Amino acid sequence: MTELELMGERAKEASRIMAVADTSRKNSALLHIAFEIDKRRDEWIAANLEDLKAARESGMRESLIDRLSLNDKRIDGIVESLKEIVALPDPIGETLDGVRRPNGLFIAKRRVPIGVIGIIYEARPNVTVDAAALTLKTGNAVILRGGKEAINSNKAVVNIMREAIASAGIPEDAVMLVTDTSRESATELMHLSKYLDVLIPRGGRNLIRSVVDNASVPVIRTGEGVCHIYVESSADLNLGAKILFNAKCQRPSVCNAAECVIIDEAVLKPFLDAAVPLLDDKHVELRCDEKALEVLGSRGVPATVEDWDTEYGDQILAVKTVKNEDEALRFISDHSTGHSEAIITGNYGAAERFLNEVDAAAVYVNASTRFTDGGEFGLGAEIGISTQKIHARGPMGLKELTSYKYVVYGNGQIRE
Amino acid sequence: MTELELMGERAKEASRIMAVADTSRKNSALLHIAFEIDKRRDEWIAANLEDLKAARESGMRESLIDRLSLNDKRIDGIVESLKEIVALPDPIGETLDGVRRPNGLFIAKRRVPIGVIGIIYEARPNVTVDAAALTLKTGNAVILRGGKEAINSNKAVVNIMREAIASAGIPEDAVMLVTDTSRESATELMHLSKYLDVLIPRGGRNLIRSVVDNASVPVIRTGEGVCHIYVESSADLNLGAKILFNAKCQRPSVCNAAECVIIDEAVLKPFLDAAVPLLDDKHVELRCDEKALEVLGSRGVPATVEDWDTEYGDQILAVKTVKNEDEALRFISDHSTGHSEAIITGNYGAAERFLNEVDAAAVYVNASTRFTDGGEFGLGAEIGISTQKIHARGPMGLKELTSYKYVVYGNGQIRE
Repeated sequence: MTELELMGERAKEASRIMAVADTSRKNSALLHIAFEIDKRRDEWIAANLEDLKAARESGMRESLIDRLSLNDKRIDGIVESLKEIVALPDPIGETLDGVRRPNGLFIAKRRVPIGVIGIIYEARPNVTVDAAALTLKTGNAVILRGGKEAINSNKAVVNIMREAIASAGIPEDAVMLVTDTSRESATELMHLSKYLDVLIPRGGRNLIRSVVDNASVPVIRTGEGVCHIYVESSADLNLGAKILFNAKCQRPSVCNAAECVIIDEAVLKPFLDAAVPLLDDKHVELRCDEKALEVLGSRGVPATVEDWDTEYGDQILAVKTVKNEDEALRFISDHSTGHSEAIITGNYGAAERFLNEVDAAAVYVNASTRFTDGGEFGLGAEIGISTQKIHARGPMGLKELTSYKYVVYGNGQIRE
Repeated sequence: MTELELMGERAKEASRIMAVADTSRKNSALLHIAFEIDKRRDEWIAANLEDLKAARESGMRESLIDRLSLNDKRIDGIVESLKEIVALPDPIGETLDGVRRPNGLFIAKRRVPIGVIGIIYEARPNVTVDAAALTLKTGNAVILRGGKEAINSNKAVVNIMREAIASAGIPEDAVMLVTDTSRESATELMHLSKYLDVLIPRGGRNLIRSVVDNASVPVIRTGEGVCHIYVESSADLNLGAKILFNAKCQRPSVCNAAECVIIDEAVLKPFLDAAVPLLDDKHVELRCDEKALEVLGSRGVPATVEDWDTEYGDQILAVKTVKNEDEALRFISDHSTGHSEAIITGNYGAAERFLNEVDAAAVYVNASTRFTDGGEFGLGAEIGISTQKIHARGPMGLKELTSYKYVVYGNGQIRE
């Protein structure tokens, strides 16, 4: 047995106990984690300093170093979000459906944990705590595999969490960390079908694609977002400009940020007149098709075909002109990653058509795509945003970390 | 573009129209299929005769030839089951949840089709019609890839189905058949991520493992069943014997048939005394652990370690003796494929413990595992039985061929 197989076996064993742990015990474990992280924060910060030192030596970009950094304020936030997860209702055990069949069998569909969940992710150490808390709350065991940049921070906090849950009577093996951060260990994790029920990648496009392409374990694909704002000719243009500015600029690095605005030709000039002054504030680069370039002159640059499929994650916006909603829907169908899509319109029929026909996790009328988020949707914390169509779509909260089983009560039924 | 990519593109295009097709149009298309298959059955049977001729020449086993064969009675059954699918409620469009958020956004979770579904399967030509009907009813487009043994039968019936749905105003490309039955075409289908939203394998263990191991498209794993009947010491032994006989012998080739009986040591001899005379009727071979062998003598043969993990699909039964429920639960946890598991008991606590702790799609008290089936569970027709824990578990009916999206009504909301 390899080290990872042993880890899988121990996680599976822990998941059997987790599956029947009652809500109060799971919540008690989460509160122990919150308390211990709060109390032992110096330990975690010291380990984080080692990671930061190594990161600086390797020449990591300042924005990434910022994401890797822990401080008191961030740890306070992590402790707070643990308490919020405790406060959420436990979905496990819920009866989803039930039927008494003509032959007398009583069949109930009961919500149960998935089992052993793998999470493979990049630098941010807060993900380690988030992911562990959400999987514990839902009665799962978790195998975490963070990036090598955060390995010392992750070791420290997983150590704290394992001790905390053990003191609450939950098996410490319900939270496991893969400390070998080689490419080989990632590949092995992707094929650990005997122990792993699902693998969730969280991070950049390359990480996600690599997991989707290589894993034989079931995967939930997350996070790629080439999101569009479509400004239909009847739109309130000032409202549209504000929504576009918010969707593009409020936090450009995240997956629900807009990458492209699609504008009906009839309102091309007046809409750009309303929107560009806002975008100027953040020096947003505009990559334009021919018609938009005619209006914008030197304020725009010509778009290439790659622009229509690029998730910039940056202060860059593609600008596409269309004749009408037909063309806009076609363009979205050809270039959307199925994450979040919005129409700005005053026309009832145009709005309903957009909501019905656009194939994405979240479709909006007159609102920013930035709302596609577990907290904003009222699901509580989220483990990621699914861009695939099986199992879960859009923000994944606690329910999306569960499965179900059929519980069947008989009294001697046989099949004829 | 390869031929398969072109097919994917056409299926995706059709899926956009299917997604907004109303229930009456989809039902009308299904009735057209039923009517045309009924009317043009000679065409289908003639094509099937070609397949049967080739099968006989290649020396195919008689039981497989039987599964490949069409006749009037089977076609009547297929037509009948199409009518039953028409009668089922259409799950598409259902609002699963809805919330008005404090900021005024109204968010509704709406059930939608998955999109383009791939089905990869083996010989039986009725699967071609079943799979197409269930995917059409749920507003999806389907790419079918049957086995080479049934290629002529499949071509004929897909041709009939495409003409039938076109005459009902549904795009014929909503039903596509991959006519290249090479291994390469199967591999390409498993990587058609740009067009395929999910791939469902139906067939033997080798087919399913190959798809699970190789696909980069999301897969729903179906059908492997090493199912157990556990006879607890307080069981009504005659009732247990009847249930075991039914679970093993009523149709041994299917995935919900029992492969192993686990018996509490305290009732080992009396239970075998009750059960073996029934099993004798079907000449069931008994592969026994040491204790069972002591009781059975020459009626049994010694089991090897492989027996505990084998899906026989045949008149063979493994016999395992345990001390108590603890040992039984451990044995099931180690050897179950997570399909269907049953306990025979008169003890309330033993029953509840079994239902809570056994991790399988369906867990039974005092009933045969043979009931794990879409029809028997009241779901209507089924596309297969999932043995994975994400998306769907157990029998997959119409709802399991759907996804959802969040439809968000705003009036200018931006994220602060």
